[in-house]
Amino acid sequence: MAVFFHALKCLKFAENTLLKRFNCFILWPVSAMLEQLKLSRLGGNVMDTPQIGVIGMAVMGKNLALNIESRGYTVAIFNRTASRTQDVMKEHGDKKLVPSYTIEDFVNSLEKPRRILMMVQAGAGTDAVIEELIPLLDKGDVLIDGGNTFFEDTMRRNERLDQSGINFIGMGVSGGELGALQGPSLMPGGQKEAYDLVAPILEQIAAKAEDGVPCVTYIGPNGAGHYVKMVHNGIEYGDMELIAESYNLLRNMLGLDVSQIADIFADWNKGELDSYLIEITADILTRKDDLGSDKPIVDLILDAAGNKGTGKWSSQSALELGVPQGVITESVYQRYISAMKDERVNASKVLPKPVGSVDVDQKTAIEMIRKALYFSKLMSYAQGFEQLRFASDNYNWDIKYGDMAKIWRAGCIIRARFLQNITDAYNKDANLQNLLLDDYFENIAKNYQESVRDLVGLAVKAGIPVPGFAAAISYYDSYRSETLPANLIQAQRDYFGAHTYQRNDREGTFHYTWYAEQ
Amino acid sequence: MAVFFHALKCLKFAENTLLKRFNCFILWPVSAMLEQLKLSRLGGNVMDTPQIGVIGMAVMGKNLALNIESRGYTVAIFNRTASRTQDVMKEHGDKKLVPSYTIEDFVNSLEKPRRILMMVQAGAGTDAVIEELIPLLDKGDVLIDGGNTFFEDTMRRNERLDQSGINFIGMGVSGGELGALQGPSLMPGGQKEAYDLVAPILEQIAAKAEDGVPCVTYIGPNGAGHYVKMVHNGIEYGDMELIAESYNLLRNMLGLDVSQIADIFADWNKGELDSYLIEITADILTRKDDLGSDKPIVDLILDAAGNKGTGKWSSQSALELGVPQGVITESVYQRYISAMKDERVNASKVLPKPVGSVDVDQKTAIEMIRKALYFSKLMSYAQGFEQLRFASDNYNWDIKYGDMAKIWRAGCIIRARFLQNITDAYNKDANLQNLLLDDYFENIAKNYQESVRDLVGLAVKAGIPVPGFAAAISYYDSYRSETLPANLIQAQRDYFGAHTYQRNDREGTFHYTWYAEQ
Repeated sequence: MAVFFHALKCLKFAENTLLKRFNCFILWPVSAMLEQLKLSRLGGNVMDTPQIGVIGMAVMGKNLALNIESRGYTVAIFNRTASRTQDVMKEHGDKKLVPSYTIEDFVNSLEKPRRILMMVQAGAGTDAVIEELIPLLDKGDVLIDGGNTFFEDTMRRNERLDQSGINFIGMGVSGGELGALQGPSLMPGGQKEAYDLVAPILEQIAAKAEDGVPCVTYIGPNGAGHYVKMVHNGIEYGDMELIAESYNLLRNMLGLDVSQIADIFADWNKGELDSYLIEITADILTRKDDLGSDKPIVDLILDAAGNKGTGKWSSQSALELGVPQGVITESVYQRYISAMKDERVNASKVLPKPVGSVDVDQKTAIEMIRKALYFSKLMSYAQGFEQLRFASDNYNWDIKYGDMAKIWRAGCIIRARFLQNITDAYNKDANLQNLLLDDYFENIAKNYQESVRDLVGLAVKAGIPVPGFAAAISYYDSYRSETLPANLIQAQRDYFGAHTYQRNDREGTFHYTWYAEQ
Repeated sequence: MAVFFHALKCLKFAENTLLKRFNCFILWPVSAMLEQLKLSRLGGNVMDTPQIGVIGMAVMGKNLALNIESRGYTVAIFNRTASRTQDVMKEHGDKKLVPSYTIEDFVNSLEKPRRILMMVQAGAGTDAVIEELIPLLDKGDVLIDGGNTFFEDTMRRNERLDQSGINFIGMGVSGGELGALQGPSLMPGGQKEAYDLVAPILEQIAAKAEDGVPCVTYIGPNGAGHYVKMVHNGIEYGDMELIAESYNLLRNMLGLDVSQIADIFADWNKGELDSYLIEITADILTRKDDLGSDKPIVDLILDAAGNKGTGKWSSQSALELGVPQGVITESVYQRYISAMKDERVNASKVLPKPVGSVDVDQKTAIEMIRKALYFSKLMSYAQGFEQLRFASDNYNWDIKYGDMAKIWRAGCIIRARFLQNITDAYNKDANLQNLLLDDYFENIAKNYQESVRDLVGLAVKAGIPVPGFAAAISYYDSYRSETLPANLIQAQRDYFGAHTYQRNDREGTFHYTWYAEQ
């Protein structure tokens, strides 16, 4: 044994020296061997055949592997670039992780039916891994794609693999790096029997809501899981935009400083707005520059927001399905316009501001903003859940809307006390047509609408953009309108394009002779 | 000669009798023969070899064929269902139209290089016709798709046909049925050399602006023409929504009746709002029920607007390209929400209206609405032209923005006096980054912004949805904002997803240690 450890130490030394000296990784097979040796020798940690394998050792894959391992499983791991796997093993050599350095070894190392979680780059990267896996897998194996994949890709892949009898689950994973490690919210869609094969693991690694219920459930067939994750992300865009608009009003309409605003968000987080995003906003606003100045860090960050495309997909799908989704879409557009920084700086020198100023009591205005934020959040969620309903009907997914709110209560970025109200609403009526028709929501709408109306008026007068708040109140007023001026639009369409129209006093399709036919 | 006409009459009688008796069209070859006979005999109308052929004899195809013929050309026509061609020949047998009843005959009848205009159903229908045509066409022939085709389909088809040396032009056609007949606005994209082969015909059939310039120009390669038409239609959605919002405010905030509103639109049409859509709105509002009541027809049309998808495509593309386009998108969403009529009727019974009423002088409010409409229209066009710029850069189309405004001045649905102002703006600066930076637009923004601000406040307070106006002023205020609260959004993204951010005081990409790494 002592001889073995001596050999190990020598090898390690040689490896480190060479690595430092030549700054290269040509020794990885040695290193791999080393890890295997260590693994198979380390005191008492008897390895089972891995019950699951994870492909992709970037931070999300690594953290999910560690999360699974921490629940008592042995986890096979693989990464195309071997050094990443080695790094994981160096850091976590004491855990029940079984590294492989070829995809064949990885597949062969797994218990059957195999359970494989892919955490690789969405798009072509995912297709490449699937192509490599197909000849190696057997009927009944379960392949899970946990990336941020476009749901139509998941539908295509599910159909293709299903032809070989291989189960394919597209799973949304929310919660960021920390969520992946400690407990994310999981949104798996695919074959129900495949879900049952992985459910015990998923339920253990998922976040738990306050009532102990794990934040995972079977979403529906093929692309349903990734679709729900996409809408989750769209809602996240909406939440962030509404918070940003509130911050902007507190800062630039009321003239508060960053620390005062931090206190306001911290205070809001104690009430019905209690949520992860409000919590981190309060935290962010307390932080100072990490590069030396004593300014708040937020004042040093460039106001040009990026995006990874899921909010965009969500809006594109709403447009495709014919469901209004103004709050999320305006949030996506605000990110785009924020990114046009040079244009804005240029335009700010040319285009005039509003004249005059807004006179409002500070305390009143703060409460007005809080109510507008909560009201607008409600509208955004009402739109998001209506989008889920349209999608479920269109793709035959049979999504359980209440369960979606339930699994978003913890683990994910949009986790919030408020999701319990949505869960409750669907518990009362599983087929609720629109969240706004639930008592709780109706009541908030009733009591908060005047604040939103006054605030939008003030903000617009002050020249502070509130596209999210404005889209929210527009949606409310449109949705509750028995009649809208679309009759005029139909008349116009019939006038110039003979598109015909329906009447409100009898059935049928009609065309008016607007002008003499040529 | 007399014998011939007697034979013709007998045949015609036999055909009509049989048609009436058996209600069938089995005789169409006889009928076709008849038309051919008639054609080749009719007095003095000596037929040239057709310089162009039109496939698809629905109303748009028929009217374009008649328009071309009226400029002195001989036009070959073909329709999959022969009876349609026959109907055209029955109605217009005296014109220089050459019908064919097989696609082979049609193609063979044409002068070379052949010029063929397809006016068939977009999508699979277009692909089917192209497949039939490919083996029949020669290198250098020009095939034009004048349907409402998605630009990516046009890009794909252009590439495919180009491999066989066949030119493919995707051409947007706007102006409705009447425009097709009398002079539409045409937006052709494809090979420049192909455009040159059809330009003389297109310039003759296109509408002419007040200065006599024809409303057609070469837009750019492959999908450019259909893209520009798509944005044209998106802008059309925006115009119609803004008019509908104005109408709704006049009606429901000011309590005016339909005939008063008709007068207001007629009055507006004399000023800077002068446009086809305002003109037909005024006309529509004067029309009575055509089924017997003495109510205005607009009051009997169901407030559920349809759409043919081009507005949706336009918004989806803006989302794809990263360019904000709130006014058009809200217009699309308002059509969707209008179509949810049953849901709205139900919601109107549950969700509370705002309390209180809006007190405003009628005359002041009417002028406020006029200014808001014009201001919002400006914003919508600024967004639309910015979208063209993003698309042109993305697809390497080299679109001449000023020319787009120029060819929209007449013929098309969005034709308006205002398009001369856009033309002028690009004449002053062909590379203008955003229309709002032009003097004329800047001046309108300056003088009208307070009206928009006041009106949005009033409308929101009154509970009358103005998503288009609100999106317009949000865009203005965002675009002219040197700083937006996207710094907070970037901080949040870095907090939960380590997405990194840029700083405003130095170059580089940064990540903040928000919490201890796990």
